[in-house]
Amino acid sequence: MAKYTLGLDYGTNSVRGLLVDLDSGAEIATAVADYASGEAGILLDADQPHLARQAPSDYLDGFLRVARDLAKVADLGAVVGIGVDTTGSSPMPVDAQNRSLADLDAFRGNLAAQCWLWKDHTSYAEAAEITALAESTDEPYLLKCGGIYSSEWFWSKILKCFRSASEVAKAAHSWVEICDWIPAQLAGITDPADIKRSRCTAGHKAMFEEAWGGLPSEAFLNKLHPELGALRSRLFSDVFTSDAVAGHLSADYAAKTGLPAGIPIAVGALDAHFGAVGSGAAPGILVKIMGTSTCDCMVHPLSQELPDVPGLCGIVRGSVLPGFYGIEAGQSAVGDIFNWVARFTGESHDDLNEAAMETKPGESGLLVLDWHNGNRTVLVDPRLTGTVVGLTLHTKAHELYRASIEATAFGSLKIIQRMEEYGVEVREVVACGGISDKSALTMQIYADILNRPMKIARSTQTCALGSAIFAAVAAGAFPDVNTAQAKMAGVREIVFEPKPENVAVYQKLYALYLQLHDSFGGVEPAANLGNIMKDLLDLQEASRG
Amino acid sequence: MAKYTLGLDYGTNSVRGLLVDLDSGAEIATAVADYASGEAGILLDADQPHLARQAPSDYLDGFLRVARDLAKVADLGAVVGIGVDTTGSSPMPVDAQNRSLADLDAFRGNLAAQCWLWKDHTSYAEAAEITALAESTDEPYLLKCGGIYSSEWFWSKILKCFRSASEVAKAAHSWVEICDWIPAQLAGITDPADIKRSRCTAGHKAMFEEAWGGLPSEAFLNKLHPELGALRSRLFSDVFTSDAVAGHLSADYAAKTGLPAGIPIAVGALDAHFGAVGSGAAPGILVKIMGTSTCDCMVHPLSQELPDVPGLCGIVRGSVLPGFYGIEAGQSAVGDIFNWVARFTGESHDDLNEAAMETKPGESGLLVLDWHNGNRTVLVDPRLTGTVVGLTLHTKAHELYRASIEATAFGSLKIIQRMEEYGVEVREVVACGGISDKSALTMQIYADILNRPMKIARSTQTCALGSAIFAAVAAGAFPDVNTAQAKMAGVREIVFEPKPENVAVYQKLYALYLQLHDSFGGVEPAANLGNIMKDLLDLQEASRG
Repeated sequence: MAKYTLGLDYGTNSVRGLLVDLDSGAEIATAVADYASGEAGILLDADQPHLARQAPSDYLDGFLRVARDLAKVADLGAVVGIGVDTTGSSPMPVDAQNRSLADLDAFRGNLAAQCWLWKDHTSYAEAAEITALAESTDEPYLLKCGGIYSSEWFWSKILKCFRSASEVAKAAHSWVEICDWIPAQLAGITDPADIKRSRCTAGHKAMFEEAWGGLPSEAFLNKLHPELGALRSRLFSDVFTSDAVAGHLSADYAAKTGLPAGIPIAVGALDAHFGAVGSGAAPGILVKIMGTSTCDCMVHPLSQELPDVPGLCGIVRGSVLPGFYGIEAGQSAVGDIFNWVARFTGESHDDLNEAAMETKPGESGLLVLDWHNGNRTVLVDPRLTGTVVGLTLHTKAHELYRASIEATAFGSLKIIQRMEEYGVEVREVVACGGISDKSALTMQIYADILNRPMKIARSTQTCALGSAIFAAVAAGAFPDVNTAQAKMAGVREIVFEPKPENVAVYQKLYALYLQLHDSFGGVEPAANLGNIMKDLLDLQEASRG
Repeated sequence: MAKYTLGLDYGTNSVRGLLVDLDSGAEIATAVADYASGEAGILLDADQPHLARQAPSDYLDGFLRVARDLAKVADLGAVVGIGVDTTGSSPMPVDAQNRSLADLDAFRGNLAAQCWLWKDHTSYAEAAEITALAESTDEPYLLKCGGIYSSEWFWSKILKCFRSASEVAKAAHSWVEICDWIPAQLAGITDPADIKRSRCTAGHKAMFEEAWGGLPSEAFLNKLHPELGALRSRLFSDVFTSDAVAGHLSADYAAKTGLPAGIPIAVGALDAHFGAVGSGAAPGILVKIMGTSTCDCMVHPLSQELPDVPGLCGIVRGSVLPGFYGIEAGQSAVGDIFNWVARFTGESHDDLNEAAMETKPGESGLLVLDWHNGNRTVLVDPRLTGTVVGLTLHTKAHELYRASIEATAFGSLKIIQRMEEYGVEVREVVACGGISDKSALTMQIYADILNRPMKIARSTQTCALGSAIFAAVAAGAFPDVNTAQAKMAGVREIVFEPKPENVAVYQKLYALYLQLHDSFGGVEPAANLGNIMKDLLDLQEASRG
């Protein structure tokens, strides 16, 4: 008799459910439900372009619709466990009964009472304030998250709520990330103190770390806002990896879905991290989740020393795999840049791709800085912009397209080199996400520039698959995540191997990229860039033979 | 009874004739004849992409066709003098009878025996060799032409001919610029020694300067090639401004055209310089001939000291106006860059122009280096390329269009500042050429960035008009060029005045432009460019209010 594990993946616009057969490891059914509210699931405010919120009820409603659709093709009674991954940091205020304030009559329609979606940037001033305070008080809180606190993160958003909607902030008994709130809701947990909080989200987004006693101190928080310190005790002091059980499916949700009551629900986590697990994350393997932006995930054994790595977005114990440091890095625009080139030049991706295939490394004479949406890693600076050097009156659209792909690969190599400088070896790269699936050109360029084999995750829904893997482990179907991965995750047969002749050219181009990177990034010592254009012309001439 | 002056303007693809009424100063008739040979008048060689030659017979044939067309609408018997301007440096080899070698049976069809058109770049190696020799021998020859000898110039081309087509070089009795050869032909001069050579072309292109005894020394030339020194004595030792008479129209050409035999023909000169005169060149007025590239012309009284100005293309006594230093500078791509943006983005100039009009200074966050075809002044470096800083995922085509216009204006301001540093004051700017005629957007941006009134030459054919002005002076119709200009040249009523609010923003952007300019241009001391992107974002935010 078949047994299934159910992975739920809460994205920005929809929730996906994936059923995996425990015996074969095969993905047997999937269903997607768009969020019902707002614009593509996002609540916007015309007067506040940085605002992005979500209705918490959409998450629970989406779960029911996904379950209903899956029930049409599979027996949900065979499900042994549920996993949940979500976007983040996406916190919401809750009352003492773990109800979202958004669902209370007093705050209905109040945007501040909704979930503050990861991409909400209304709290950019608060983020800068938190960074400044951590620096001026010499606190270590930012050491694990790249040295700069983000407007996308937990405390910035809560502080902004205190500043801009104090009636909501005062009414909040606690604040909960949706990756913690959804499992708790499915398990019928009605006291926020009973919620099992994700180690992954707490570490990456809320400056939680055992070394300094968990969350930042009450005194620190009070310096940000007199009422923020008091909130600390109503948040959490323990955090959990996703092989732990957050709770068990409530009778109510069991009845509504046909899922067995009482099956375990794994502790939730961030989608990208589960995507890494679904792609086969393991020591020495860098998993790149490549889409409009890119998230890089690595693991490093807890048993081996790992210093703070400057510029990396986050280093959190157990955030990807239990027993490992989870290391997160990222590039704030990748596919978005390629899309921009297509829009800007009025040419199709297909045409650009085809012509770019015929262009050799160095041939265009172009060099691009991939900072069209800032630089997340390793400069951690949103106020950086895209740059193109080497334009002539003959420059063609497909040359900019190829140079833009190369630039994102150079940015990726910079991240890898930073990891390796601090002892985290990257032997091979596994890509997942839309770009890995669609663009052989991009994969080959990455192989040549990273000078490492590029593999592609077998699954096209690795986040949901990672979620299903943790559900299986939490349910006790496998002794550990590694065993579950061996059954359920994997890579495709095709491997993009570095081509030595391309590697040689790209090493020269990368040296020039680093020069631009450091000069525009403000890294000292400074040198003039008088060689850049000439070196590019030399490489162009050499490539033309 | 009406009297006319005839200006001939030999461009790259055609020759234009312009008849001006001496009494009213009005342009009464114009005619254009395309050159018959090659591709749009240019002889090409598929195996040598740098090669560009012209058939000398096309010049004489073109003259006859222009005269024939003018005769249909005006009485050519009323013409009192002829002026000639041409492209340059465009030298050709001639025999002892002043016949183009190209017209001799022995060399018919031989590309080396034709006129070596200004844009022929086959002699780039020879140009570098000449620069290196002048530097290593500590000769002053490059002091007046920016320190670097060009592949577009006289000696590079002759040296290349010795190297690559020695049968032609050995057969050449002399070499003559077409601005000297055409007047000599019309005057029936059959001994190259009798040709009145242009001071303008000799000074700007052949390193002629009284201070070092005219042309470079025989010893210097012999170091380049053992037979080049011997040629020196068969070239010239005197040069003339264009108020001088080169000769008188021969009976033969008079009979063929209906022009009066014996009317004076002014000494020829370079087209851009005559364009400056036709635009009203005078002290304090910078004339910009704005087209696909831009040529800047200034004059400075010979009575006032003028040191060598580093990076300017040329400072030559009498090259624009008699009694003044002629100062030439230029930008190797201007309209060509705007055309590239239109091609690259697939949008029309009209659409780009209209949207760019609605964009405020600083609003795009973009900063461009206008080096898509190298930098002629003041860096004098063809191996520089175009650059765009400040790209985001929202950057639009019209923003790049506007930023490209701004970049060419910044490049122009750098030239003006270099002139003023050396005592040549620029009070106002008069533009002529296609762009001045077509783009009010460009004129306003230039006014705001140069922070000077931008005027537009009244005539749309200022080179031919300058030619007509010199013809009138050479014919004695006016006592001097200034008086002739007062009658025949002038500016339009519309003046683009700097807008103070734009000037203020552009001063900030220009400081950033200079930072990029110096860093990529290799100017020391170096500083990192860490401020550039942030300052652009600040300006963008400020412009959005």
